[in-house]
Amino acid sequence: MTMDAHPSKTLAEFAATLEPKAIPETVLRRAEELFVDWFGSALAGKGARPVEAIESLAREMGPEAGEAEVLISRRGTSPYFAAMVNAAASHYAEQDDVHNGSVFHPAAVVFPPALALAQSLGRSGEEFLTAVAAGYEVGIRVGEFLGRSHYKIFHTTGTAGTLAAAAAAGRLLRLTPTQMLDAFGSAGTQAAGLWEFLRDAADSKQLHTAHAASAGLAAALLAAKGFTGAKHVLEGPQGMGAGMSRDADPSRLTDRLGSRWALAETSFKYHASCRHTHPAADALLHVMRQHGLEAEDIARVRAYVHQAAIDVLGPVVEPQTVHQAKFSMGTVLGLIAVFGRAGLQEFETAFRDPRVVAFRGKVDMVLDPEVDSAYPQRWIGKVVIETVDGRTLSGRVDEPKGDPGNTLSRTEIEEKFRRLTEYGKAATGEEVDRLLPRLWAIAQAPRVARFWE
Amino acid sequence: MTMDAHPSKTLAEFAATLEPKAIPETVLRRAEELFVDWFGSALAGKGARPVEAIESLAREMGPEAGEAEVLISRRGTSPYFAAMVNAAASHYAEQDDVHNGSVFHPAAVVFPPALALAQSLGRSGEEFLTAVAAGYEVGIRVGEFLGRSHYKIFHTTGTAGTLAAAAAAGRLLRLTPTQMLDAFGSAGTQAAGLWEFLRDAADSKQLHTAHAASAGLAAALLAAKGFTGAKHVLEGPQGMGAGMSRDADPSRLTDRLGSRWALAETSFKYHASCRHTHPAADALLHVMRQHGLEAEDIARVRAYVHQAAIDVLGPVVEPQTVHQAKFSMGTVLGLIAVFGRAGLQEFETAFRDPRVVAFRGKVDMVLDPEVDSAYPQRWIGKVVIETVDGRTLSGRVDEPKGDPGNTLSRTEIEEKFRRLTEYGKAATGEEVDRLLPRLWAIAQAPRVARFWE
Repeated sequence: MTMDAHPSKTLAEFAATLEPKAIPETVLRRAEELFVDWFGSALAGKGARPVEAIESLAREMGPEAGEAEVLISRRGTSPYFAAMVNAAASHYAEQDDVHNGSVFHPAAVVFPPALALAQSLGRSGEEFLTAVAAGYEVGIRVGEFLGRSHYKIFHTTGTAGTLAAAAAAGRLLRLTPTQMLDAFGSAGTQAAGLWEFLRDAADSKQLHTAHAASAGLAAALLAAKGFTGAKHVLEGPQGMGAGMSRDADPSRLTDRLGSRWALAETSFKYHASCRHTHPAADALLHVMRQHGLEAEDIARVRAYVHQAAIDVLGPVVEPQTVHQAKFSMGTVLGLIAVFGRAGLQEFETAFRDPRVVAFRGKVDMVLDPEVDSAYPQRWIGKVVIETVDGRTLSGRVDEPKGDPGNTLSRTEIEEKFRRLTEYGKAATGEEVDRLLPRLWAIAQAPRVARFWE
Repeated sequence: MTMDAHPSKTLAEFAATLEPKAIPETVLRRAEELFVDWFGSALAGKGARPVEAIESLAREMGPEAGEAEVLISRRGTSPYFAAMVNAAASHYAEQDDVHNGSVFHPAAVVFPPALALAQSLGRSGEEFLTAVAAGYEVGIRVGEFLGRSHYKIFHTTGTAGTLAAAAAAGRLLRLTPTQMLDAFGSAGTQAAGLWEFLRDAADSKQLHTAHAASAGLAAALLAAKGFTGAKHVLEGPQGMGAGMSRDADPSRLTDRLGSRWALAETSFKYHASCRHTHPAADALLHVMRQHGLEAEDIARVRAYVHQAAIDVLGPVVEPQTVHQAKFSMGTVLGLIAVFGRAGLQEFETAFRDPRVVAFRGKVDMVLDPEVDSAYPQRWIGKVVIETVDGRTLSGRVDEPKGDPGNTLSRTEIEEKFRRLTEYGKAATGEEVDRLLPRLWAIAQAPRVARFWE
């Protein structure tokens, strides 16, 4: 591999000059699906305390009108505040998408600034999706560049997310490559987000996406006005890699730009639980369907997992809250066994259902060398079940539901969308009926208009 | 020293409960002086390209009216955008104050959110100055906590400044100690600012103060709405110290809280040049006045300096721009010798004046062990002059002009104010005549009102 002497510039140039015709058809169709999936997550944030606090801040500090739409409240304001609130809202239910290799949630930081600017500038749906692709390709590569040491302290969705937002916004503003590099400089020098809040279960997660989306958008708007930024904000000796990582790898910034589409590697979240539970949940579902089993037919489940799953899920023995239940392997498999799914509603209403609690006691986790060595590139699910009638049945899923090789169908995305909007009480079934066809047709829209008018 | 198990909390409690009567009279008077000094710097940013770009962003993204004042444009808007623009403006002329030990510029990040909230909430001048003191005490200690390794990569005024802004804003919002700790959490997780931009002489410096002021203000506003934050965002294992420093010292966070007033340690900037030139400039001025010398009486000047001065100033031999001239020891001493001062106007109009250029060639820097070992706690100035008529005269200044032991008189602060407003063309002499008495009387104001109505 030849070293790129100025990877920030190469990446900025790519984002600024990306054209729809350069993007494969399958990638554009996947972008549509990620858009619909994101929109549902944004609506699911309605009514959530931290999200409504940010919306209240936006009402007090921002303008009362504008072409950019706050999806949960259906009001218009400036792109800055629409991006801020929509980003906070879409990261709340933890059902927004994820890119495995970069451990980065692109949708929550890319769609909010892109939608806000597309609406206020009246850009076409095609230009909107192109900007979204620029945001995904940039953000994922910045996340991969920052690496594992970064993720130990920093919430990559907050930090890399600021660059992702700037790239998407910059493309909609039609920045030149030089201006896009300025936007990257102004975004990178505002990039922030620390994991420390997790210890106190504080509200920062929504603030991180809100901040990334609004600061990245501001960086792009400033670049359009001639405001300059550092030219090596990612790889420079006083840049993000130097200050916020110990294993930053600049070669990742430009990895197969234009031929590898990181957007299409992004996973939909299917279950509403910690992602470390998903492979086993899918494997269990597979065995139960294959053999026509009910929850009460099962005597014991062994889930064969990677070490990180044991580290994260092991401490949760008897979950006391919905949030903890999402980190309990026994509860997740219990919901799957009893209801056939582990969605937002099941967690809210049934994590203490006696049938689920009983099933929880039948579940063990076992470290599996094959599963562990494949992680994190591949998340393999393996379970072995003992039935009440004495059979031993095993199941295996090589890619959890939602990963690119086992993706959600458009019907499944719509079903998820309906569950998310019911959860947030953000739209009626009739409104969703009218909304979904418009969302699916985004690529054909001559102008991205407001959805709630 | 006993270790404080929760220094973030102790600091938050101090900021939330600080009362005017707990602050010594001399400290409050110094706060007034720092306020007048800051106001002049804010006006000096008028017309500067990066500042006007941020003001243009604020006009497009923020509300058209409000009680918080943008000082350069005299318009009202929401506190968020007034804080953002005033912070950008006041860091432009590089004449805003500095705290030596923390290498932190408090005024540019503390006064903007404090003034914006005091105006919009109608707080008294006394409460405003109390909040300002909270901001200085918090921000300086956070800067000291983050230490030298942090400053190598991060612009402390951007990072520690976010906490300083949150503290000042939180005090004006009358947050409880618990809410103030939440505000610190939300501020710390947004703290950002990288030195990488310096390499390209990019515009990020103004963005750093703008971001710190607005993000810190937002953190405090969110805390008032019940939005929670990390409780150990400074000293925790995934907090700012862990992620952004290698020599973070938590004991600095609570250093003599309530007895040591870091606000009163803050220095006014007198000359408009790099601060490493100030000690020698003062020593030269001292000798010239003592002996009644003119520039043409001097054959040679040796400036005895600390190593950092040689590192920073050494490379500038023949300055090509105003900005470079501020880093040329010969030019600074030449302006002092010819005009008796090295202010904004002198740099703008005369850094290439033949008399200044001629003087520049007579100046050398020499590393001095005493000066070097006293640095950075003390910035000693020493010069030895050879006169045309064969005399050797030496001068020494133990604290440069503007440091607490050699502070500016109120008359000198007013003179500096007038020079700054002339530079920015932000106010006429008559307007300044009306403005200054109101600024000096801030402590007596029953409500902090707008200044330009």
